[in-house]
Amino acid sequence: MLNYEMIFENAKNWTKEAGENLRESLKQAIEVEFKTSASDLVTKKDREIEQLFAQKINEIYPSHMILGEEGTVASQDYVFAESEVWVIDPIDGTTNFVNQKMNFAISVAFYDKGQPVIGIIYDPIKDELFSALKGHGAYLNDERIESLKACKLQEALISVNSLWTIPNEKIEEKKLFPIVENARGIRYIGSAALEIAWIAVGRLDAYIDFRLSPWDIGAGIVILRELGGEATTLEGHEIDMTNTSTTLFSRPGLSAEIRSYLA
Amino acid sequence: MLNYEMIFENAKNWTKEAGENLRESLKQAIEVEFKTSASDLVTKKDREIEQLFAQKINEIYPSHMILGEEGTVASQDYVFAESEVWVIDPIDGTTNFVNQKMNFAISVAFYDKGQPVIGIIYDPIKDELFSALKGHGAYLNDERIESLKACKLQEALISVNSLWTIPNEKIEEKKLFPIVENARGIRYIGSAALEIAWIAVGRLDAYIDFRLSPWDIGAGIVILRELGGEATTLEGHEIDMTNTSTTLFSRPGLSAEIRSYLA
Repeated sequence: MLNYEMIFENAKNWTKEAGENLRESLKQAIEVEFKTSASDLVTKKDREIEQLFAQKINEIYPSHMILGEEGTVASQDYVFAESEVWVIDPIDGTTNFVNQKMNFAISVAFYDKGQPVIGIIYDPIKDELFSALKGHGAYLNDERIESLKACKLQEALISVNSLWTIPNEKIEEKKLFPIVENARGIRYIGSAALEIAWIAVGRLDAYIDFRLSPWDIGAGIVILRELGGEATTLEGHEIDMTNTSTTLFSRPGLSAEIRSYLA
Repeated sequence: MLNYEMIFENAKNWTKEAGENLRESLKQAIEVEFKTSASDLVTKKDREIEQLFAQKINEIYPSHMILGEEGTVASQDYVFAESEVWVIDPIDGTTNFVNQKMNFAISVAFYDKGQPVIGIIYDPIKDELFSALKGHGAYLNDERIESLKACKLQEALISVNSLWTIPNEKIEEKKLFPIVENARGIRYIGSAALEIAWIAVGRLDAYIDFRLSPWDIGAGIVILRELGGEATTLEGHEIDMTNTSTTLFSRPGLSAEIRSYLA
């Protein structure tokens, strides 16, 4: 029987250590050097952080699988729904890492035989650690986050990339116009993990996207659901954690209102 | 002869004091109370902060005019181009103030006979004070900001509200599609003053908007130009500080590339 509390504590500690690593690497990268080698730095750091997790996981939990964006882990043959899997994005929001040196996050989740159990999203620049162990509440650093209340689209800040409200290959852009027009406002940070974490603490109310991967959203799903929030495909179905999906994250009830406009 | 350095020091001190006031008011507003009375709070605070500036300005600079968003100052009869004018937005990004409790700013500028002289933008939650006195450099808190370098649209993060990339009354939305498609990314904070301040420190590279008022941009114009950045109407003309304008803010050179797509 797995000790989830212990995995949760380990995962939080490793994530904070990884965040410290990223924070320091940005401090040390002086401006001129950074501008010319930013994409090298992000590639190097992405892989380094993923390996940092892989080493620790392999040492303590050798039977666990790792599903990471960078794919630095030797290929593993497993069935997601039958395995213990860590779902990791070492730097979610790499463009922000390079251009803004902020507004990126480390996203770490643990899924047990397909079930979301642990979610951790860490913004190392703000030093904000969003975390949840299923059934034990969600936290921002050491403070428990209140359960989410319903809200209407007209009171809501919606996160959506402008790419989806102009002609694109994923959705007829017109379907999104009523959402843009009727929301209180549209925002976009540029890190999927942070958009979801910000819904958890009420800074955003919903987030719509069309091509997210499991590592972008694995942790956010756990945190948001722990607070009564909704995490589904755009059509309201369960998200497939082995594939790229359309996604709709929101406070309770708001997903249904958004879907009513899309129909 | 006006002592600009003294006005600059006073303006920074008053802005920090106002920021402390806003920061405290958000700390004290507990969640339930805040949600039900958020719009009352923002109205009250907007007016209170504007009056805080008005009292101090009237005391020390009784001949100066005040152009504030809230219009709490008794009506003044003056010609902008012939007067000493403080241009003040007590809370820029009021929706963020209410919904996010962050990502808003106080924007304070001083224009001498129509000439931009002093610009101050303060994000009290991040405790980031962006400031410039014309000819004396621009600063983020006590650190001098480096002059801005040129960049291409394909390397750039562009700030634009999704309202302008769907059918709207200000611009044929299609004209903005190539910008959204060719930029490295689109972002939107929801505070005009902060979008401009973020260009100043390289977190964003350009910001396009279509109905900004003088108090939204008065300070940003001073700060951005001090760093070699560009602040014009969308057509590349001087911004009229007595009216609502289309606006284009950017690193040097990027405005021209953006305009080439809009033509």
